[in-house]
Amino acid sequence: YKIAVIPGDGIGQEITEEAVRVLKAVDAKFGLDLTYETRDAGGTAYDKYGTPLPEDTLAVCKASDGVLFGAVGGTKWDAVEPALRPERAILGLRKGLGLYANLRPVKVADALIAHSPLKPELVRGVDLVIVRELIGGIYFGEKCESEQVDGAERAWDMENYSVPEVERIARLAFETARLRRSKVTSVDKANVLATSRLWRRTVTALAEEYEDVRLDHLYVDNCAMQLAVRPTQFDVIVTGNLFGDILSDEAAVIGGSIGLMPSASIGTGTSLFEPIHGSAPDIAGQGIANPLGTILSAAMLLRYALHEENAADAVEAAVDEALAEGKRTADIYIADTGCTKVGTREMADAVLAHL
Amino acid sequence: YKIAVIPGDGIGQEITEEAVRVLKAVDAKFGLDLTYETRDAGGTAYDKYGTPLPEDTLAVCKASDGVLFGAVGGTKWDAVEPALRPERAILGLRKGLGLYANLRPVKVADALIAHSPLKPELVRGVDLVIVRELIGGIYFGEKCESEQVDGAERAWDMENYSVPEVERIARLAFETARLRRSKVTSVDKANVLATSRLWRRTVTALAEEYEDVRLDHLYVDNCAMQLAVRPTQFDVIVTGNLFGDILSDEAAVIGGSIGLMPSASIGTGTSLFEPIHGSAPDIAGQGIANPLGTILSAAMLLRYALHEENAADAVEAAVDEALAEGKRTADIYIADTGCTKVGTREMADAVLAHL
Ligand SMILES: CC(C)[C@H](C(=O)O)[C@@H](O)C(=O)O
Ligand SMILES: CC(C)[C@H](C(=O)O)[C@@H](O)C(=O)O
Repeated sequence: YKIAVIPGDGIGQEITEEAVRVLKAVDAKFGLDLTYETRDAGGTAYDKYGTPLPEDTLAVCKASDGVLFGAVGGTKWDAVEPALRPERAILGLRKGLGLYANLRPVKVADALIAHSPLKPELVRGVDLVIVRELIGGIYFGEKCESEQVDGAERAWDMENYSVPEVERIARLAFETARLRRSKVTSVDKANVLATSRLWRRTVTALAEEYEDVRLDHLYVDNCAMQLAVRPTQFDVIVTGNLFGDILSDEAAVIGGSIGLMPSASIGTGTSLFEPIHGSAPDIAGQGIANPLGTILSAAMLLRYALHEENAADAVEAAVDEALAEGKRTADIYIADTGCTKVGTREMADAVLAHL
Repeated sequence: YKIAVIPGDGIGQEITEEAVRVLKAVDAKFGLDLTYETRDAGGTAYDKYGTPLPEDTLAVCKASDGVLFGAVGGTKWDAVEPALRPERAILGLRKGLGLYANLRPVKVADALIAHSPLKPELVRGVDLVIVRELIGGIYFGEKCESEQVDGAERAWDMENYSVPEVERIARLAFETARLRRSKVTSVDKANVLATSRLWRRTVTALAEEYEDVRLDHLYVDNCAMQLAVRPTQFDVIVTGNLFGDILSDEAAVIGGSIGLMPSASIGTGTSLFEPIHGSAPDIAGQGIANPLGTILSAAMLLRYALHEENAADAVEAAVDEALAEGKRTADIYIADTGCTKVGTREMADAVLAHL
C-alpha cells in the first residue's frame, strides 16, 4: 500500500512523524507492506514553492491508497493573499481528491470524561458521528472579494447545493447509521435558507429508501444548543459544509479533548485522514503536542482506506491502553489525578509499547 | 409611552401576558404612563389574516416607543409556503423596523449555575454580550428556491455584507464594550469566505477609533469551541446574522436556562424586545412556561427604549429575588434542592411580590 504523508505546518510535522512510527510498527506486526511518500503543503509549501498545494503533492496523494495529513496554517501567513493561504492546501486537496464527506466520530474515553467542559453525567456515553459535506456549499460557491454597489463596497459568497450533492452525503449518513444505532439527525436552517429547504426535502425523500433508520431534522441553532445540553441524543448528524465546520468543532470539545479526535475525509478515490485540531504554531517544535489525534487518524486510514481491520483495532487498543496507564500530554493532563505528563515522543512510545 | 405587544404563537401568549402585568405594576410604582396595543403576528396572524405579518401590526410597532415580542412558529405551519411561514413575521419586523442589531446578554445568576450543562467552575462569572447583525447577511441576501443547472436541481442563497453595514454593527459593539470590560471579539470565517474577509478588514479599520478597546478575531468554528471551553474569556462578541444565530443559542444554553434570557433588537427607530426561546408549542396553554425571559426583555425595553433605568433595575431586582427565594418553573427546577416548582402565573406573582 502507498501512503502519502503530508505533515503541513506547525505541529503537523512532529505529530505525523509519530503516527508514521506507529504505522511502521503495525506494518511489521501485520505485514502490510506500507510505503510512504512525504510531501509539503500549506505555509511550508508556500515558503518553498510559492503555492500552498504544489501539483506534485496532489499527484502523489491521488496515486496513493490513503493520505495522512497533519495540519496547516499559522499567523505567519496572515498577510498572504487569500488564494495562496495555507488553508487553500486542505481545501484544494478536498476538491482535488473529490472528498465529499468528512466523518468525525466523537466518542468519550471513560478515562477522559473529566476533561470535558460538560458535566460528567451529560458526557458519559456520548457516541456520535458527524457526517459533514465537504466539497460543496458556501465553501466552494462563487464569491466576490469586493465590488461597488450603490456607492458602497461589498463582498459576497454563494451558498448552494444541488439535489445530487445532498443525496450523496445523505446516503452516506443513512448507511453509516445502519452500522450504528440507526438514527440520523439532519441539520439545516430551513426556516431561513432556500438551500436548506432543498436540503431538507432531498433528505426527506431519500429517507424512504431507509425506513429502518429514524430521521429527525434540527435547525442549526437548536443543534448547537442540543450538543451542549444533551449530546447523548445523537447517533449520526448529517449537515452541510459550513454548519458541519461549526458543529463538529463544538462536538469535539464537548468530547473532552480535541487533541485526540481523528477524522476521515472520503470520496470516490483516495481518502484522507487528519486530526481535527489545527497546526498550533505556538507550541510547534517543542515536542509537547498530542500525537493521538493523528495516530487515531492513521487507524482510520487502516480501517477505511486499506480495510485492514485488525491493524486498525490494534492501534486503537494500544491508544486506549496508553491512556489507561495514565500517560497524558499537556493538553489532557490534570494535576493530582495520578497521571504522568509526557511529551509527543513519549506518548507515541507508550502506544508502541502496547502494540 | 406606547408599547406594542406582539404575543405571537404558542407560549408567546401566556408569557407576554405576564410580562405586561409586571410592566403595569412597575408603571403604577414609577408613574411611567404606559399604554398598550396588542397585535397578532406569526402563525396566529396567518390563520386569521392569511399573512404572518399584517400591515397593521407593523404600523402599530412603528408608531410605538418599544415592542414587546413573545415568540412565533410551530409545526402546525410546517406545510405553509416559505414566504408565509410564522418566522417571516419576526424577519419582517426586523427588516421593517430597521433593527440592525440584536443584543443578547448572557450572565449567569449564581442561583442557576447548577443548571448549566458546563461545570460550575467554567460558568461562574460568565458575563458576555453577543452583538449580532440582524438585517443583513445570508438571511436577507438574494435567494433561489430551485433552478436547473447541468441537469440537476439546485437552490442558493447569497451571503453578503457591505462596509457600511459592518461599520454600523461594529461601532455598536465597540461602544457597548466601552461600557463594560472594553474587549471585543469579532467572529468570522475569513479563511474561507470573501464576506468574512471584508468583515474582518472593516472591523480592524474601525478599531483605530477605539484604541481603548481590545479587539480579537476568532474563526466561527473556534468560537463555538471557546464558548464551551472557556466562556469567561468573552466580553462583547460581534458577528454576522447567521453566525450570531448559532453562537448566541449556544452561549444561551451555556448560561444555564434559555427560559430566562432576554434580548434587545435595536435600530434607528423603535426597538424590539423578546425572550430568546421559541414558541414551544408542546407546552403552550398549560401555564408552565417560564415567563422570566419575557419579563427581563420588558426590563430591557424599559432601559434601552424608554431610558427608565430605575424601573428597569426594579424589575431585574425583583426577578433576582424571586429566584433567590427558590421559585422555579419546570425548565429550571431541579428536585431535592429546596426549590419550589411553580407555574407561569405564580412565577410572575413572585416577581410582582418583590416589586
Ligand atoms: C482550515 C479550514 C479551512 C477548515 C475548514 O473550515 O473546513 C478547518 O476548520 C476544518 O474544519 O477542517
Ligand atoms: C425564528 C428564526 C428565523 C430566528 C433566526 O434565525 O433569526 C431565531 O432563530 C432567532 O434567533 O431569533
